[in-house]
Formats: sequence, structure tokens, C-alpha cells
Amino acid sequence: MATKNEPTEKIPQSNGIPPPSFTLPYPDKPEIITSNLLKLVDLTPDERHKFLLKNLVRHMHEFINETSLTTDEWMNAIHFLTAVGQTCTPIRQEFILLSDTLGISALVDALNNPPLNGATESSVLGPFYTDDAPEVQQGESIASEGKGDYMYVEGRVLSIDGTPIPNAIVETWETDGNGTYDTQYEVREKPDCRGRLRTGPDGSYGYRAVVPVPYPIPGDGPVGDLLTAMGRHNMRPNHLHMMIEAPGHQKLTTALYPEGDLWLASDAVFGVKKSLVVSLKEVKDDAEAKKRGFPKGGAFKLLQHDFVLVPTAESQAARERFAAERAKNALA
Amino acid sequence: MATKNEPTEKIPQSNGIPPPSFTLPYPDKPEIITSNLLKLVDLTPDERHKFLLKNLVRHMHEFINETSLTTDEWMNAIHFLTAVGQTCTPIRQEFILLSDTLGISALVDALNNPPLNGATESSVLGPFYTDDAPEVQQGESIASEGKGDYMYVEGRVLSIDGTPIPNAIVETWETDGNGTYDTQYEVREKPDCRGRLRTGPDGSYGYRAVVPVPYPIPGDGPVGDLLTAMGRHNMRPNHLHMMIEAPGHQKLTTALYPEGDLWLASDAVFGVKKSLVVSLKEVKDDAEAKKRGFPKGGAFKLLQHDFVLVPTAESQAARERFAAERAKNALA
Repeated sequence: MATKNEPTEKIPQSNGIPPPSFTLPYPDKPEIITSNLLKLVDLTPDERHKFLLKNLVRHMHEFINETSLTTDEWMNAIHFLTAVGQTCTPIRQEFILLSDTLGISALVDALNNPPLNGATESSVLGPFYTDDAPEVQQGESIASEGKGDYMYVEGRVLSIDGTPIPNAIVETWETDGNGTYDTQYEVREKPDCRGRLRTGPDGSYGYRAVVPVPYPIPGDGPVGDLLTAMGRHNMRPNHLHMMIEAPGHQKLTTALYPEGDLWLASDAVFGVKKSLVVSLKEVKDDAEAKKRGFPKGGAFKLLQHDFVLVPTAESQAARERFAAERAKNALA
Repeated sequence: MATKNEPTEKIPQSNGIPPPSFTLPYPDKPEIITSNLLKLVDLTPDERHKFLLKNLVRHMHEFINETSLTTDEWMNAIHFLTAVGQTCTPIRQEFILLSDTLGISALVDALNNPPLNGATESSVLGPFYTDDAPEVQQGESIASEGKGDYMYVEGRVLSIDGTPIPNAIVETWETDGNGTYDTQYEVREKPDCRGRLRTGPDGSYGYRAVVPVPYPIPGDGPVGDLLTAMGRHNMRPNHLHMMIEAPGHQKLTTALYPEGDLWLASDAVFGVKKSLVVSLKEVKDDAEAKKRGFPKGGAFKLLQHDFVLVPTAESQAARERFAAERAKNALA
């Protein structure tokens, strides 16, 4: 054990970098703090990193200047961010939740996946994706019997020129009839309400599922407290997640949102786009239900939707065009 | 134990807030995400909270738009912030360190403690303050013998009109001769290199201490990685923390920075103001050293400094005037 005169290993070490070669004035005024910092940011070797830091620093300092943020408010912000970080666990990401509820995830998604006429639009991945979805065959079910109301999902995966894409990987996950993902139960014997299948030679896919149910995002952490303080609900409308991969095409992460849900327009994480709102057809035909493999027969909902993927090069070009347009508009 | 069909207590709950009464368009375009979010922020009941959130959201979304932040960069930021939160412990605050190194703590301090002609300027509190500093009498030492080179600190505490303030509480803390605070040692039998004393009837104070030594801020966490990536050193110049309280006056949190230190102008946390840079007088007088109570006699450094406090009402008025001026300039 160290005596009190021996520094522990925890004593900070110098990183070995010398003082900057240029002279900095003492930061006697608020604006000198900002300009000194920006001069130091200029030392950042990586150009993109430097560009991001400069922009970020400018916005953060402007925020503090424009609001004359008080010391107490600053300390509250420190406590809030610390609590967000400390709420994260291997299965809970409170910073992504914060980013989701402040529209940042949706904005990043929108900028990185610009709409291309005719292509299926993207939606947020969300925190409930797992990589252990079981392989299912066409017509099989992704949900155990009894997990919710019957829903059959079918359609085709196409390239943007209309060509069907065979052998595309369609991965899908959703809540059960409680509005709960399999990972949220205390015991998870096996993945449920999620599956991975491949399109047929004509690009078609079809599988049995359950009607997803709207659900609250976690409200027992700092992000939940923030939403409550803002007078905002913490609900997501019901939806079916889809992730589609095919050789030579940009991977598509999206979701389908059945129309009529109470929370569609005010989705707590800004995930819904108009083109992703779908109608569920009610099929009241016991024979048809049984033919499609629903063990109890009766009625079921039918969700029919085609997904249109974009070739990788075209997608990359669109992203660059979109960024250039935005940069031009930002300068204008 | 719950069966897999019973949701655990961890299942999120709705916060009971209904959807907003107004209609929101689907966030099909980046700018609709931002405008929808701002409409939701408008629901925030607390006016100041609403104002802060609106400004913050606008700056965050502008940052993402102006940089066309990529999905990978966004994910790196999420990981960085999570690591910052998870590096915090009861005795380490990595978010304050981040705020310090990005000039935010200094900026908040500067805005909340505007300079008043003749008053002592403030400096950052730093993370090493503890509330258990022992009471010391005038002339006593705040440092155990052997903790560093002898330094005597003396001066007066005055009100801004020059009136001496008797019985003011002077709290002071510093590194030892290793550049290490007492809290950074594995074993801390008692507080060291910190003390609390009261000014005499003529406002004077005086105590024995050691010459503080420059030191690195923690570099083994995400903030250390950030500084290294930026090509910035992680050093603070040597300094003596002072916190002075007197009835009817604004509490002063500041520090004195001995001149000549290599790291003065590029202090990693932007704490140094020109008026806080002081000279240490070398006193080579064995008799004088012994008279002042230094057990080994020999030479010592003498730090003489008066602190000028501002009456509470005057300080509040200055803060409001300063905020109003800044708001006017921001609009202009």
C-alpha cells in the first residue's frame, strides 16, 4: 500500500505535448477565451476533426453567450449529461435516446440517406436491433404463437429501375402484442418477433408476424425526466422494423408505420416519414388465414409493401450532391 | 422469477402526456425535423428552460447541418459522450474536465462574474476543492512540514471602496511540491495543503504554505484522448486557489498564478487572467523565515496580495448590466 507521500498510479501524467509555439493573450474577456480556444483547435492534425471541432466550439460558445447561461444552469447541465452517461449499460444507450428525442438521430439519418425519387426512405434503427434473429423461410412466422394479433407481411424487393432483386436479405423485428421487444423481458430463452429471410427469384418475400403495438421509450432515466419537463409524451407509434441488404446496393434501414396510430405525427424520436405510413388490410377469411399458416385461422391483417433499393454508387453520388447543395445553401 | 411472457419492472411506462393538440407535418425533410422539434419545445412550461432548449436545439441542428455529420461521426460522438459519463466517479468529474478544456467553464465563469473596476477577478473553481479544510490561525501553516518549498501568503481583504473586511473567511488550497493535491494520493489521512482562516480586524490575513507546482489534468480518460488528438498539452500552470466569503459581499472564487510559469498563457482550462498573475518575492533571511514559523528556516517565497470583494447588490447589478449589454450586442 502506498504511503501518503507516494503518488498513486492514478496521478495524472503529462501527455508530453509542449506549449503552442504562438503567443496567446490572457483570456481576460469572454471573447478571448473563444478565440484562444479556436487557435488551439487549429493545431488539430486531422482536417475533418478540426473542421468539426471548430464548428462545434463556435456553436457551444454562442449558446452560452446568447443565453448568458448561469453557473447553476451550467452545473445542472453537467449533472444531466453525467446521469445520461451513467444510465448507459450494455443493453441501454441513454445518449442515443437523448439524440433520438432531440431529433438529432433523425437529422443525421436524413442527411446521410437523402431521398431518391422512387427509392424507399430510411428510418431510425432504434435500440432494439439484435444480430441473432433466426433464419425463417418464406411463409414462416417470426413470432411465437400467442404473441399478438396475426399479421402477414409480403411484397418485393426491387432495384430503383424496377428490376426485382432475388436473394436479398430481409431482416425484420417488432414488438409483440404488449408493445414489448423480446430483449425487454427478464427471461429471453430465444429471439422472438424477429427474423431474417431471403427474397425469392422474383424478388418477393412473405412471412407471418404479429401486429406491432405502440410503446413508450424508457422514461425512468434523465431523458425521461427531460421529456416530462418539456411536457412531451414518450410514445412511439407502432411499427415494423426492416433492414434490407442486397449485393451492389446501399443497405436500407427503415420501418413501416401502420396508419391511424395516435402517436404517428408526434413520434417521440421523429422516425415517421409519410412514405413509410402503410395501411393494414383486414382479411376476414378463415380458410385464407389457415392457408397462410396461421394456426388458429380467423381474421388477420395483411401488410403489402415493396422496398426499392438504390445501387451503391448512385446512393453515394446522391449523398455527395445533397451535402454540396446544403453547403451552398448554408453559405447563401 | 418472471416468465418470458411477463414484462419485467424495467419495461418502460408511458409518462401519461397526450399527443400535442396541434398538427405536426411528417418530418420528411431535415428542416421539418428541426421545426417540429422547436414546436414541441414550445410546450415546455418553464420559460427559461424553454428559452435555453430552443437556443440549444437550434445550435445543435445547425452544427449537424453545417458539417453534414456522417452516421459514423455521430456514432463516435455518442461513444465519446458515453465514455465521458462513465469515467465520472464520486471523486472525478470528466464532464467538468471536458467543459474546462473546451473553455466552457471559463466562459460561464466570465459571464457570471463580470469584471468590476478594482475588484479581484474570478477564476475557475477546479475539481480539487473539498469542504473539509482545517481551520488555521493567522501565521499557521496549511501544509505539513516537508510537502514543498516554503511560501508565505499575506495581504488584506477589502471591500471595493477600500474598507478592510474583518472576519472574512479565506479558504485556500493548492498542490504540494509534487504538483499533487491531497485527494489524489491513495491514502489521505487528513486534509493537507488546504486551510480556512479568518481575516483580522484590519482585514489582514497571513499563512504559511508551499510553492505550488504545475500539473497535468487527468489524461487517461476520453478528455485526455481528445486533447492528444487535438495536439494540445494537458498542463495547468502552478497556482494557489482562494475562495473568500464575507457578509454582504459576493463570494469570490479565484486563484493566483505565479509569473514565469511555462504553461501560463496556454493553461489547459483557460483559468489565468492577467490580473491574477502574481510575483513571488524571494526572501533569503533565515531569521525572518524562523520568525514566520518555518521550522527549517532558510529562504522562503513571499506572496503578497490584497483581495477586493464586491457588495452583493452591486455585483448582481453588474451581472445584469453585463448580460443586457451582451444581449444588445448579440442582436446588433
